[in-house]
Amino acid sequence: MEILIVHHAGQLLTLAGGPQRGQALGDLGLIEQGAVVIQGAQILAVGRSTDLLKAYPQAERFDAHGKIVMPGFVDPHTHLVWAGDRADEFTLRLEGKTYMEILAMGGGILSTVRATRAASIEELVSQTRPRAREAFRHGTTTMEVKTGYGLTLESEIKQLQAILALNREGPMELVPTFLGAHAVPPEYQGRTEAYVDLLCKEMLPGIHDWWYHEVPDQRLPFVDVFCERGAFDLAQSRRILEAAQGLGFPLKIHADEFENLGGAALAAELGAASADHLVKTSPDDIRALASSQTVAVSLPGTPFGLNEAEYTPAQAILQAGGTLALATDINPGTSWCESMQFILALACRKMRLTPAQAIAAATINAAAALQRQDTLGSIEPGKQADLLILDVNHYQHLGYRFGTNLVSHVIKQGRIYPVN
Amino acid sequence: MEILIVHHAGQLLTLAGGPQRGQALGDLGLIEQGAVVIQGAQILAVGRSTDLLKAYPQAERFDAHGKIVMPGFVDPHTHLVWAGDRADEFTLRLEGKTYMEILAMGGGILSTVRATRAASIEELVSQTRPRAREAFRHGTTTMEVKTGYGLTLESEIKQLQAILALNREGPMELVPTFLGAHAVPPEYQGRTEAYVDLLCKEMLPGIHDWWYHEVPDQRLPFVDVFCERGAFDLAQSRRILEAAQGLGFPLKIHADEFENLGGAALAAELGAASADHLVKTSPDDIRALASSQTVAVSLPGTPFGLNEAEYTPAQAILQAGGTLALATDINPGTSWCESMQFILALACRKMRLTPAQAIAAATINAAAALQRQDTLGSIEPGKQADLLILDVNHYQHLGYRFGTNLVSHVIKQGRIYPVN
Repeated sequence: MEILIVHHAGQLLTLAGGPQRGQALGDLGLIEQGAVVIQGAQILAVGRSTDLLKAYPQAERFDAHGKIVMPGFVDPHTHLVWAGDRADEFTLRLEGKTYMEILAMGGGILSTVRATRAASIEELVSQTRPRAREAFRHGTTTMEVKTGYGLTLESEIKQLQAILALNREGPMELVPTFLGAHAVPPEYQGRTEAYVDLLCKEMLPGIHDWWYHEVPDQRLPFVDVFCERGAFDLAQSRRILEAAQGLGFPLKIHADEFENLGGAALAAELGAASADHLVKTSPDDIRALASSQTVAVSLPGTPFGLNEAEYTPAQAILQAGGTLALATDINPGTSWCESMQFILALACRKMRLTPAQAIAAATINAAAALQRQDTLGSIEPGKQADLLILDVNHYQHLGYRFGTNLVSHVIKQGRIYPVN
Repeated sequence: MEILIVHHAGQLLTLAGGPQRGQALGDLGLIEQGAVVIQGAQILAVGRSTDLLKAYPQAERFDAHGKIVMPGFVDPHTHLVWAGDRADEFTLRLEGKTYMEILAMGGGILSTVRATRAASIEELVSQTRPRAREAFRHGTTTMEVKTGYGLTLESEIKQLQAILALNREGPMELVPTFLGAHAVPPEYQGRTEAYVDLLCKEMLPGIHDWWYHEVPDQRLPFVDVFCERGAFDLAQSRRILEAAQGLGFPLKIHADEFENLGGAALAAELGAASADHLVKTSPDDIRALASSQTVAVSLPGTPFGLNEAEYTPAQAILQAGGTLALATDINPGTSWCESMQFILALACRKMRLTPAQAIAAATINAAAALQRQDTLGSIEPGKQADLLILDVNHYQHLGYRFGTNLVSHVIKQGRIYPVN
């Protein structure tokens, strides 16, 4: 198989050594004048340029010109697949309309549900493709994608089909999550328990069977619940997640975005891969998370998008020894942002992460939030060859600069894509 | 001369009718299914696609495919020309160091002055070129650029030379400003009055003579002063600006970024083109600005970059009848952001501008802040053909979405550049 050496990396950020807990966050495993040897889609060797150029004299060479080479970003929380948009609603909010008024006008999440239900798989794919491309151009090489704008078995499967279709297209790699418990659908308004029954008794088993019939060779999707007032309370969230766990699904949870209902501790108790949002998380729940394997995923694009002042208490999570990751939460209502780079810039300012901490939270720790830390998120022999080249001289420019794209090349599974 | 027709604009935002004062801000002059006819570098006709395609059957056609066509952004406040960077300082601040501690370590603006003084014109040009390119790719077709990292006649002229050289290269059009009064240089520490003497008696006349010798056919640069505690007080600012005005320079001022010293009212009194920053501006000064021709330029990237809570009181400026513009303030210390699109997204959230208001503030009103409203900032017959094509279906996506680049093509002086 063809061997490629990416050499002359002024700073090679390996992120080697696995997910980074608590105050250990920010170990970049930096090699100056580094190189990465790639065979096919995998990393074969990592080290200093001079050594590796000698060891692999026949390899095809790609000169990083003294720039930064780092792992591709992993975006572990997105709602990438939707139809339509909610730009009007954004302007209405600026003009002073409240969320409840907009909801009463037919806006909010249910307007996206309407549009997504009405769309064909092909329409969903063609509307989502430019967003996946944009994220890839900004350095995201793997991204989680949730369903949750269908809220019927059939339309949720349609979203999964769109995710699988886009994943087959590549180069972006998509990791699916079933979020049938995103909201109570219009036909179940006032009957949340009945919808939870439907989820547990029909939709989850239905998704499970469909998946094993459709893509038996692929890991089951995550199952996620929006545990929040107005969506699903703690008891309902537990029912849904336990039903999912009984079927073998790995778990995630949306917790504490607007209120603390105890979702983070539930995630820790059930061994969920991650608990996400975590704005109103209590000190007890932070401790529960920190003493578990559950990754705390912060989504700073959402308070920014909504112009709210409060962000994830990242410093408290680190002090407690938690594993912190970052994600875009890209969605049409609160945070239409494909760029993990911008999320890093926000995290540095709003949660006082250093650029090194933000980078680790967006790579190896984000891979852990998807239970993919064995194959993704760092530059180590045997791992998938997902790399970025940043057109800057120091990694600190991630965070320091904002609003633009510092990535010049994305390498996905060993293949080089110039993107900027 | 070759005639080009940009047709099939789903929304053509003309911004016709001149700068927009007060609550009138936000009139986009929107034409659905619009077209623009361009002859050479100038706009020849504006109207509906069907009419103009008939009227100019021989014109070369460029299909906007139902997307948005609008004037290029004008960025009326930048410090684009500098050497080095201050990424280290960003991390030090996140780790808890204060600005004064960083200054004592040799950081802050004076580290940029050191690097800029040490750089050749060629180095300044080559370090600045990627920033100009990035701004252009994000839709800025004209940008003001200040000196102010030299602080000697010779090194300030070197910055002007870099600006002129980049302007000759194109396609970005640069409008120069002399900001010798950006800071008190190290060799004048504790002797601000002596530096003001130097500015008034030697540097301003020196710049004036050099300019008329070097580029007699070009308009004089603006002269700007940083009127702030620790820089130049109100009396010193007045001395400098009056000396500049006596030599025929048009004026600008940095006012009220951290404290209110009265700079905005001074700008209004002297008929400055703009007063910029305006975070701590008093109600009296807002009224003084509003009753003058001076444009109020808000720079929301700076509080965002510094993670400060307070932004320009834009609503009060509009209520008073002021002319509001937006700019990036791109600089290596507080706001390294080339993208006017991101500034619009910030302005919507932090200052409650609607997307339409933000667009007007970043085009026709920004052109007024550079006294270029007769040739730039709108799509009207006779104006320069500086246009953007945005790859979205509704202009509201500017503001609604953040962190990425929605521009697909920039048309500068009639020439089409695909950028994304």
